[in-house]
Amino acid sequence: MKLLRYGPAGQEKPGLLDADGRIRDLSGVVADIAGAAIGPEGLAKLAALDAAGLPLVEGTPRLGPCVAGTGKFICIGLNYSDHAAETGAKVPPEPIIFMKATSAIVGPDDAVEIPRGSVKTDWEVELGVVIGKTAKYVSEAEALDYVAGYCVIDDVSERAFQVERQGQWTKGKSCDTFGPTGPWLVTKDEVADPQNLKMWLKVNDETMQNGSTATMVYGVAYLVSYLSQFMSLHPGDIISTGTPPGVGLGMKPPRYLKAGDVVTLGIEGLGTQRQEVVQG
Amino acid sequence: MKLLRYGPAGQEKPGLLDADGRIRDLSGVVADIAGAAIGPEGLAKLAALDAAGLPLVEGTPRLGPCVAGTGKFICIGLNYSDHAAETGAKVPPEPIIFMKATSAIVGPDDAVEIPRGSVKTDWEVELGVVIGKTAKYVSEAEALDYVAGYCVIDDVSERAFQVERQGQWTKGKSCDTFGPTGPWLVTKDEVADPQNLKMWLKVNDETMQNGSTATMVYGVAYLVSYLSQFMSLHPGDIISTGTPPGVGLGMKPPRYLKAGDVVTLGIEGLGTQRQEVVQG
Repeated sequence: MKLLRYGPAGQEKPGLLDADGRIRDLSGVVADIAGAAIGPEGLAKLAALDAAGLPLVEGTPRLGPCVAGTGKFICIGLNYSDHAAETGAKVPPEPIIFMKATSAIVGPDDAVEIPRGSVKTDWEVELGVVIGKTAKYVSEAEALDYVAGYCVIDDVSERAFQVERQGQWTKGKSCDTFGPTGPWLVTKDEVADPQNLKMWLKVNDETMQNGSTATMVYGVAYLVSYLSQFMSLHPGDIISTGTPPGVGLGMKPPRYLKAGDVVTLGIEGLGTQRQEVVQG
Repeated sequence: MKLLRYGPAGQEKPGLLDADGRIRDLSGVVADIAGAAIGPEGLAKLAALDAAGLPLVEGTPRLGPCVAGTGKFICIGLNYSDHAAETGAKVPPEPIIFMKATSAIVGPDDAVEIPRGSVKTDWEVELGVVIGKTAKYVSEAEALDYVAGYCVIDDVSERAFQVERQGQWTKGKSCDTFGPTGPWLVTKDEVADPQNLKMWLKVNDETMQNGSTATMVYGVAYLVSYLSQFMSLHPGDIISTGTPPGVGLGMKPPRYLKAGDVVTLGIEGLGTQRQEVVQG
């Protein structure tokens, strides 16, 4: 299934994408794409529905972030060996984790706002993992049982805030609009191998990132298990698993976003995002 | 006012402490100590109530975290010059910020759980600032207008996870139960000067920390303004403003918590906490 949330910001309704790519309204079935609705039983209930029998949503409404009730937005740093190399860093011997503020989460096609004082706002296409069931001290073998599905994330990053302002990284990762999430929460049954998905990002019409989750250092199952040793993961929590090469920071000379730029990005099977860049 | 939340974990009701130190039930007035209820208008409405007319809560129920709906739990690193010195670090030229997972938040007297594999679980008494109104790009002069009040926080920290496991600090700050918060949200009208509050922490009966917010490097108004340049602060967000000297990491030799220890801590006018330490 491709689950989504549509409507004005803060008033989104739950929906799903039917076989013809049309939005069907789920608000008569679940309150939101959140909590128990994305747990194993909740997803089984949704999967048993006849999509054709659900109300069809007319037009092309705004899409919100594809999951609600996100308590933690956890990011993995330097998790692609080739991206680590482009930033001059080594692959870490265990995952680097940091938090992005949940207040940074926006819809997949919402504007990205350059914060005041920023001159180094950068892009990062990432595979997002959405937790469906509370995970604490889980093994790698059982880790995917706790995953509801996957989504596209743009881990927008302000490099000066991140590394030149006394740290920690969260300072450059948490600005409003820095977390476009969606368009869809694609349930894991539709993703045959999360470690073999093509991913790309363009600024205007120029391809900047063109990679695959195949070169991820620490894979999804490992990360869920690893994180669960440090903290409980809850339904709706998002893990953004790192970015492949091609970020602005890694270019020679570095290149950053400016108002008027348009960022498009996508991951195989998970849909695409499009953000206009505006000045905050 | 001293606002609080009482009852079993996850089912807390809103309350306030009356002039005689008894809990009065607020659940007929507000849904929770959260959101609009702790904004300027919400607090004015609560302040106008006759506490004696509210239902008296019998007995001594468990206290939950004193605020709900916390989207961000932002911490300030090395914000007391004497604490920086004891950890061998310099006072940073601007605030160091990092996130604590909101899933770490517990009541003021709930057990603190030593995570599996931990040998360096440490304590930190801190002044917590609770946001009451959305703040974005606010000046230092107006910053306190966005503050609902203050509370005690124990910023429990696992030092090996924090600094020996490839970072970032959030890894050692976010474990379940690592954020005792309360007992009360003391509204700012009751705190004459947040930069002149005595604070202390004991392990068993031994005093470990005995300081004052007077030696804070970056004060509350500065921090609210500073953070609001990087991200919007929302009602219920908590800023934990750093700790004075006396943490286990700074002792020679270092000293850490073990199962069976009892941690007590408090801040002048904001109440006290008591946590039994258990093995996770």
